[in-house]
Amino acid sequence: MKTITLLTDFGLKDAYVGIMKGTVLSIFPDVRFVDITHEVDPQDVREGAFIVEEYYTYFEKGAIHVAVVDPTVGSDRKPIIVRRGGHFFIGPDNGLFTLLYDDATRVYAIENSRYMGKEIGKTFHGRDIFAPAAAYLASGVQLTKFGSMVKDPVTLPGIYPVIKKNVLKGEVIRFDRFGNAITNINQTVIDDFIKQKAFTIQFQGMSFRKIQKSYYEGEIVPLISSSGYLEFGYFKGNLRQKLGLKKGDQISITIS
Amino acid sequence: MKTITLLTDFGLKDAYVGIMKGTVLSIFPDVRFVDITHEVDPQDVREGAFIVEEYYTYFEKGAIHVAVVDPTVGSDRKPIIVRRGGHFFIGPDNGLFTLLYDDATRVYAIENSRYMGKEIGKTFHGRDIFAPAAAYLASGVQLTKFGSMVKDPVTLPGIYPVIKKNVLKGEVIRFDRFGNAITNINQTVIDDFIKQKAFTIQFQGMSFRKIQKSYYEGEIVPLISSSGYLEFGYFKGNLRQKLGLKKGDQISITIS
Amino acid sequence: MKTITLLTDFGLKDAYVGIMKGTVLSIFPDVRFVDITHEVDPQDVREGAFIVEEYYTYFEKGAIHVAVVDPTVGSDRKPIIVRRGGHFFIGPDNGLFTLLYDDATRVYAIENSRYMGKEIGKTFHGRDIFAPAAAYLASGVQLTKFGSMVKDPVTLPGIYPVIKKNVLKGEVIRFDRFGNAITNINQTVIDDFIKQKAFTIQFQGMSFRKIQKSYYEGEIVPLISSSGYLEFGYFKGNLRQKLGLKKGDQISITIS
Repeated sequence: MKTITLLTDFGLKDAYVGIMKGTVLSIFPDVRFVDITHEVDPQDVREGAFIVEEYYTYFEKGAIHVAVVDPTVGSDRKPIIVRRGGHFFIGPDNGLFTLLYDDATRVYAIENSRYMGKEIGKTFHGRDIFAPAAAYLASGVQLTKFGSMVKDPVTLPGIYPVIKKNVLKGEVIRFDRFGNAITNINQTVIDDFIKQKAFTIQFQGMSFRKIQKSYYEGEIVPLISSSGYLEFGYFKGNLRQKLGLKKGDQISITIS
Repeated sequence: MKTITLLTDFGLKDAYVGIMKGTVLSIFPDVRFVDITHEVDPQDVREGAFIVEEYYTYFEKGAIHVAVVDPTVGSDRKPIIVRRGGHFFIGPDNGLFTLLYDDATRVYAIENSRYMGKEIGKTFHGRDIFAPAAAYLASGVQLTKFGSMVKDPVTLPGIYPVIKKNVLKGEVIRFDRFGNAITNINQTVIDDFIKQKAFTIQFQGMSFRKIQKSYYEGEIVPLISSSGYLEFGYFKGNLRQKLGLKKGDQISITIS
Repeated sequence: MKTITLLTDFGLKDAYVGIMKGTVLSIFPDVRFVDITHEVDPQDVREGAFIVEEYYTYFEKGAIHVAVVDPTVGSDRKPIIVRRGGHFFIGPDNGLFTLLYDDATRVYAIENSRYMGKEIGKTFHGRDIFAPAAAYLASGVQLTKFGSMVKDPVTLPGIYPVIKKNVLKGEVIRFDRFGNAITNINQTVIDDFIKQKAFTIQFQGMSFRKIQKSYYEGEIVPLISSSGYLEFGYFKGNLRQKLGLKKGDQISITIS
């Protein structure tokens, strides 16, 4: 039984996610579904890109991850299947898979209409293209049967933190349910940059000289979140609300 | 493994949906669940009726669809099983299945206490009646064993659009997550009415002479939604909020 | 195929629940998941305790219930497995399982690192400890292999209603989606206290002399909810909003 995960910005109010699952089951029923989230902020491809990177390694190899955050559904952006590290990702070629791309990643266009739904509308490729592709892939169809290789998949600009001399600059990418602010700076980047020197983190006019391990070690604390990225948390409540934070708010780390 | 889908207005905060699933599994475990939505607006049977019609055809034949929007649970409205097109629907006889009824539809009352829970309360028939019926139906119990045929199931009044001379009138039934306004006028009704003549759509003081294919073809656009119904979308944001729309807002299409 | 249920306060916006499921599947795939709720009010262990008690009996014996409401994750509170009535519960030893404890309950600490994830962080024991424990338990690992027995698991103070002479006092514990206010007084406690005498329920300056069976028997009604606890409902809308109710609001029942 293959696992198919789903990540979308469709929300849970409408029948869209259920319709995608029904479409899969009508083609190939020997699958299990795991919902990752359907609450990606509407049309925020960048937020989706960071969440896609976060969860997939916890699944067994061979799992199929359908991810649909697709502001220009119906345009000529390609539908693609991405293979990385034994995992498969299905979705639009609009940068959603940016953080997966390295030399070992392979990307294929979904072009073969044999592995699509019968009618392809312009508003719901989750149903008409991505769910059928997931079902056929789960059923054993070879990756190369779907279409040709894509050499230059779309990537999101400005997604990585930037180092200028002794300053590392990043930004808030998203907020979790508790209002913690998660940045685009991960532990590896921090370790490579700091190399055990003294450092100062600046965020919203506050300065920190230490990265904590737990939320309750201070009132407002920088810590490495469970996703491996630097985040700012607030033990007593919702930091986003307390400070009026927005996506894109800047963080800098300076070494002395 | 039979598929059981669930549509309710129970929300996801409480344990109600989980309790329904546990009840099914305790009776017959060889099923898979697919949640359609639990966010139907509380007690809005009409909204539920349109969503029920939207998703079921995407599932394999033999699937069992449990739908519970039930403002008068505990009254003497009947619990029923509806069969249409190889699909089964289980829920209250309060109009929720209005859009499924045609000459080929068969409706049975759930009357046989052998296929209900042991105790039947007055507040949670999802657990006490509908989930057990789904489990027994999945296990192979014949439809006729549940109870007698229902000749006149309840239907919702005023659910269909109305044609008066050269004007087709409908209304907003629901909003999707993105704030798009979905009406009760579907593509077939439009095609039969317009017959390739010129037409004007009027909605909220705006006029449109064309139905678009994609959200980004204009700022505010009428288009046929993925559900097959006319909707009004707003590429740049939430139309419901922008215009202060409500359910019941009127739409007219006039042919010249 | 074992059932694993999940109850958390993680919400559905983040990938946390999906990551827990992926972690289980990577260890032992022959399971099915049922989500109970992920919308427990953040860090409200008491609310979680009442919901845990509400749903589990509807599941088949042998089911594994993972429940994570864990404000002090990363501290030295123990991870535990609780066995009661053929059911298993996995989560933090912080009072979340208070209402399950009686003479027949057995509690074991999760201490054996063989049945944990490879790395144990300080922020996400759902992934690093509780999900692996659920997977290994589902796979057949004996309860006694996880760790030593816990003789005095943590319990929440002041969780039960109090009787003083002819007055039974309780409080609002939580609200359901419809705004109904659910108390900590269950039917058995009421029956034992009232013993068919006349009684008066006082709540928010209102008095009631009868417990109703259905929401529509009055405007504001006390009734026994489907969970078996006394609740206050409002047929025409949301009682919480109407009266500005809060958790902890007092209820008294007086017999004359």
